[in-house]
Amino acid sequence: MKKGKIISFEGPDGAGKSTVLETLMPVLQQKYDGHVIMTREPGGVAIAEKIRHVILDVNHTSMDSKTELLLYAAARRQHLVEKILPELEKGNLVLIDRFIDSSVAYQGYGRGIAVSDVDWLNHYATDGIKPDLTLLFDVPSETGLARIQTNNEREVNRLDLEKLDMHQRVRQGYLSLASQEPKRIKIIDASQSLETVIKDTQTILETFLELS
Amino acid sequence: MKKGKIISFEGPDGAGKSTVLETLMPVLQQKYDGHVIMTREPGGVAIAEKIRHVILDVNHTSMDSKTELLLYAAARRQHLVEKILPELEKGNLVLIDRFIDSSVAYQGYGRGIAVSDVDWLNHYATDGIKPDLTLLFDVPSETGLARIQTNNEREVNRLDLEKLDMHQRVRQGYLSLASQEPKRIKIIDASQSLETVIKDTQTILETFLELS
Repeated sequence: MKKGKIISFEGPDGAGKSTVLETLMPVLQQKYDGHVIMTREPGGVAIAEKIRHVILDVNHTSMDSKTELLLYAAARRQHLVEKILPELEKGNLVLIDRFIDSSVAYQGYGRGIAVSDVDWLNHYATDGIKPDLTLLFDVPSETGLARIQTNNEREVNRLDLEKLDMHQRVRQGYLSLASQEPKRIKIIDASQSLETVIKDTQTILETFLELS
Repeated sequence: MKKGKIISFEGPDGAGKSTVLETLMPVLQQKYDGHVIMTREPGGVAIAEKIRHVILDVNHTSMDSKTELLLYAAARRQHLVEKILPELEKGNLVLIDRFIDSSVAYQGYGRGIAVSDVDWLNHYATDGIKPDLTLLFDVPSETGLARIQTNNEREVNRLDLEKLDMHQRVRQGYLSLASQEPKRIKIIDASQSLETVIKDTQTILETFLELS
């Protein structure tokens, strides 16, 4: 049934993953004859974008961690059914800015929710579908946060306002996931210059796409 | 920790449960010296009310059943943490218009989601808390739907638009739950006149409150 492939882009905001995605998109489109789509979580389709607003609203400081996790799972489910699955069906390459690993890193390691519960919800929302390749843009938390603060074009969201130690736990979560699934998750040193990060990403993508 | 009590009101829209709740509220307040609160699901607190809008929006016809279930669970969690638990803590009597059994009846029996998954999500959202008493307002689906259609004061929502067979499965789900948990779930014949339904409800409530 599943003919296309999913590549997810993970890591903290400020690691540069969105910029890299946008830069490499034209290159991939040319190589894949237009059969590449780019999407993001939470969001990607109308219902999931509405859920995104509820999750990221800076006024929602009373949001419980479990509520947050359930909302991410709901947005993920709708995005999968309405957008990702139909694209995979057509044999397209689907690039996602954040997917299942974000929930494990942020809600599991970051917020302290049992990882087994996060895994259950990820599996429930996706029917067990995992990315074929995950690029983890790793950067020291201080660097990531500093980059967010100097980026005026980007609107501050509720998760940006978390303290440094939360962001450090998220990073450890990502690195732990990468060590558990080294074949799927590839680490990119995102503390390097943007040019080098783009070059490293392109190398990993080309190797993966040629082999697959 | 839990000092108060939860009484949930269940059954299809059109069974009259909200009217009965509003009618009995002053009686209960008097008996309980003001220590009774009335709330509803989905909703009850700001974040959950926003989730309610996403769930019930008549334009959201593409909403997947799993998305719907996850959104109900998210709204339930937030409502529990922000409103129900603090009221129980104060020793108050909490009357809820819809709670965990609605998810089993509507998303489980109605939509065909595995009841074990609905149970997992209910347990996750509530930390295993169940109502002390549940009043099930039972009415033939045709009667319930006919009552909704003649009630002009009520705004039509996405679930009202479901076909008769869905509503019949929901009713069977409720009755099945009541047979599994006869001590907690009491059936009220809501096809009777409103006066009789109120009287029956009052009798069950008084017996429960005197014994507990």
